[in-house]
Amino acid sequence: MSLLIDLQRDGDVTLQEQIYRFIRDRILDGSYRNGFQLPSTRELAQSLKIARNTAMLAYDWLTTEGYIETRRGAGTFVCETLTDMEVPAEPRQAAVRRRNSALLRKVARYETPVLISRTTKRPRFDFWYGKPDARLFPGSVWRRLTLENLSHAAAVNFSDYGDQAGNFALRQAIAEHLGRVRGLFVRPDQIIVTAGAQEGLNIVGRLFVSADTTFHIEDPGYGAVASVMESYGAEIAPVPVDGDGLCVECLPESGQTLVYTTPSHQFPTGAVLSLARRQALIDWAERTDAFIIEDDYDSEIVFDRPPLAALASIDRCERVIYLGSFSKVIGAGIRLGYLVLPASLVSAAIAVKSLGSYGNPWLDQAILADFMREGHFQAHLRRVRTAYRARRDVLLRALAVGLGPEVEVSGQEGGLHVLCRLPPHLGPASALAAKAWEAGVGLYTPEQAGVRTHAAHFGDRALVMGYAALQEDEIERAISRVAACLDGTAAG
Amino acid sequence: MSLLIDLQRDGDVTLQEQIYRFIRDRILDGSYRNGFQLPSTRELAQSLKIARNTAMLAYDWLTTEGYIETRRGAGTFVCETLTDMEVPAEPRQAAVRRRNSALLRKVARYETPVLISRTTKRPRFDFWYGKPDARLFPGSVWRRLTLENLSHAAAVNFSDYGDQAGNFALRQAIAEHLGRVRGLFVRPDQIIVTAGAQEGLNIVGRLFVSADTTFHIEDPGYGAVASVMESYGAEIAPVPVDGDGLCVECLPESGQTLVYTTPSHQFPTGAVLSLARRQALIDWAERTDAFIIEDDYDSEIVFDRPPLAALASIDRCERVIYLGSFSKVIGAGIRLGYLVLPASLVSAAIAVKSLGSYGNPWLDQAILADFMREGHFQAHLRRVRTAYRARRDVLLRALAVGLGPEVEVSGQEGGLHVLCRLPPHLGPASALAAKAWEAGVGLYTPEQAGVRTHAAHFGDRALVMGYAALQEDEIERAISRVAACLDGTAAG
Repeated sequence: MSLLIDLQRDGDVTLQEQIYRFIRDRILDGSYRNGFQLPSTRELAQSLKIARNTAMLAYDWLTTEGYIETRRGAGTFVCETLTDMEVPAEPRQAAVRRRNSALLRKVARYETPVLISRTTKRPRFDFWYGKPDARLFPGSVWRRLTLENLSHAAAVNFSDYGDQAGNFALRQAIAEHLGRVRGLFVRPDQIIVTAGAQEGLNIVGRLFVSADTTFHIEDPGYGAVASVMESYGAEIAPVPVDGDGLCVECLPESGQTLVYTTPSHQFPTGAVLSLARRQALIDWAERTDAFIIEDDYDSEIVFDRPPLAALASIDRCERVIYLGSFSKVIGAGIRLGYLVLPASLVSAAIAVKSLGSYGNPWLDQAILADFMREGHFQAHLRRVRTAYRARRDVLLRALAVGLGPEVEVSGQEGGLHVLCRLPPHLGPASALAAKAWEAGVGLYTPEQAGVRTHAAHFGDRALVMGYAALQEDEIERAISRVAACLDGTAAG
Repeated sequence: MSLLIDLQRDGDVTLQEQIYRFIRDRILDGSYRNGFQLPSTRELAQSLKIARNTAMLAYDWLTTEGYIETRRGAGTFVCETLTDMEVPAEPRQAAVRRRNSALLRKVARYETPVLISRTTKRPRFDFWYGKPDARLFPGSVWRRLTLENLSHAAAVNFSDYGDQAGNFALRQAIAEHLGRVRGLFVRPDQIIVTAGAQEGLNIVGRLFVSADTTFHIEDPGYGAVASVMESYGAEIAPVPVDGDGLCVECLPESGQTLVYTTPSHQFPTGAVLSLARRQALIDWAERTDAFIIEDDYDSEIVFDRPPLAALASIDRCERVIYLGSFSKVIGAGIRLGYLVLPASLVSAAIAVKSLGSYGNPWLDQAILADFMREGHFQAHLRRVRTAYRARRDVLLRALAVGLGPEVEVSGQEGGLHVLCRLPPHLGPASALAAKAWEAGVGLYTPEQAGVRTHAAHFGDRALVMGYAALQEDEIERAISRVAACLDGTAAG
């Protein structure tokens, strides 16, 4: 008596596991029924030319799990305990059941938001927005700080949970940084470290949003925010944006709502929310029992003036929730951001953070805390500001030369992108983007860049151009290629 | 004309920032009204004994933000634009408004779940459950792999988003590990890397749970699961547990529900779900359109037999969602775990993961992938199994000697903890835990360990004892101390 098992002797799976799996699968699919007799381990070992111990290990495993049993003097059999069980549903029946599953219909509402992913093939010169230049990553300092942290209490820190609201040294460093660069003076215990600003958005969503929540976002605005809030059941209400940022006077007087805004560098237009509107916005929130989410995603990178103080810095009414990110200055691969909360929200937000992930990984937080405390973050900010300003200057010149002086650019005072509006004679922006893609240049219309807006807002005339990750000569070469496409587009 | 500013010359905040902040705060609190004249930068510099450039930087900042304006020939004044604004609410009014805030009442429902935190002071010998021994952390290998990863494409990986479902090499390594150790043969694309098993639970909660969802958990069971699911609106329905694990026959025939179970090593009793019940559970889920969440939190650590195959390994109906964690074998400080999903749930779960955090940090994932691929994880598992088995043996002996042979222990076949039931003559478990705490030994009743159960299930006779983080001699000394407390407790 033997079993015909096609053992793979050079694979990753051990022989005993292959035997285990073979027998188990045949019991589960009904090929070996209850009471079916198996070969002895000696017979199996001989027939398969394996060590007897290997066969015994496989049988031990199957016995422990209740698939087989050995009756003294009689042999080894598929277990009686399986007798009374229902035969598993046929694959076809299972498919029908899945199609009718109420729970599966429920999950179908989730869709992955737009974002850059390395699984997507990108062209050689890519103007995707919000991406820092990897070539400016502070690698040697980061490596030194990593080694220092690994030399000191690493085992204890890897082994245990940390502070659920984040590494305290990092929160202290963030608080100092906010005071210095963003005019925002807060205590470290008002700060929660998050997995990028994205987790911060989710904490806000979980705190406030349910099926009866109206959530106001800038129009045009950052689509991923709308996706997150819709996933918690919110109804999204767009609020217009003009040259002074969010039109605060368009917000409703009916209360208990939330508004998301990017006051320092509106996404995607680059508008700066005026001081008059900042105060009006906070007054509105206080008057109507609303909260404001200030997403300060790239305001630390500013070229021609000192950075504007954050909206949260003038909030005396505890109405502003501030979202910060390290994705634009350091990089998205460290997945670190933070929330700054009014005192009245701190404990509930820490609870939501704890429920969600029990805090952040230790090592990256510890390194970033040292990076900030030792002054490297400030130095790195200066370095990237200088580099990105030069790139912006090259881009503006190249656009004026290559696409002509009628191209309108906004948002060039800072950040990692500008918004370009093309004059009608250059043809549709989407057609230009398609041609450019073929020529090895990634250009993106607002829609392609994940901007949410009402239909035809930009009239297919706009491009969101991130330039920070491209060096000056690369920008020049890329825009030359776009200019070469242009004749075709404008003509066609 | 001057301003009396008490400048801190040896602090962290620059002089211009102190000036900026002083003036800004006085404008915002109404001390300096619209039209108020400020000293010139020359006067200010002289009176404060600072460089004129410092004063000019502060004024530039205030001007850019719209607080002040310079009128040629007349001087510098607080801006007219502030004239028409509402005076910010008094602190007292703001407090009243906050008390009446509908949104703030809404957030008050969130409470932080029980878990070990380094902010809590722990006694010298601590039997908190689920904690690995930091002294066994594979520090030198981890350090080498860290350096290797930092030497290779680190800048690019830190700068950009990774795969939202997790590092693919890590998912491949997890798939191989699951086949080898858990009898669970899955494709890497069914795996999503999460911030600990906790984030996996949240993804399940977001996929399925709303206000009309009934969520079944084991009673006694892991309280944090109930907290997470309640935070998404679920009604928690406890299901009894006996010596064969979850009592599957107690699950209702009305459908579309979810059940959470720990089949390999029930938390906290240590019961193993029998094969008959495993098949019955899957049949129940298929019959009633339900899903099963299998939390396999510590089953890789097993002493006296090969590890049981995972419940998910016998699921032919795509009804089991498998939760894995590296917190128990490597440590909670890396915040890595994973979900293994039926094919029908993969895309929705990746969408929820992306909405939540856009993926995990790069470095820890890359190191762990190498750690697994190079065989270190298997070796580490063998090492900790050997160490923890010896500790368990010492604990069982020490308990029998120190507390007497009537102490009943369950769950000792594996994992990082046992459940002890004290005989009545030893007095209440909570009293013993309190005395032990004073004697420097952390003992925890199920309630203190975050177990959720119906009142009086354990009759104040049980302790959840995690022993993995204590060495053999420490366990002996700790139990001696407990034994010394015992006379007092039993007598009192």
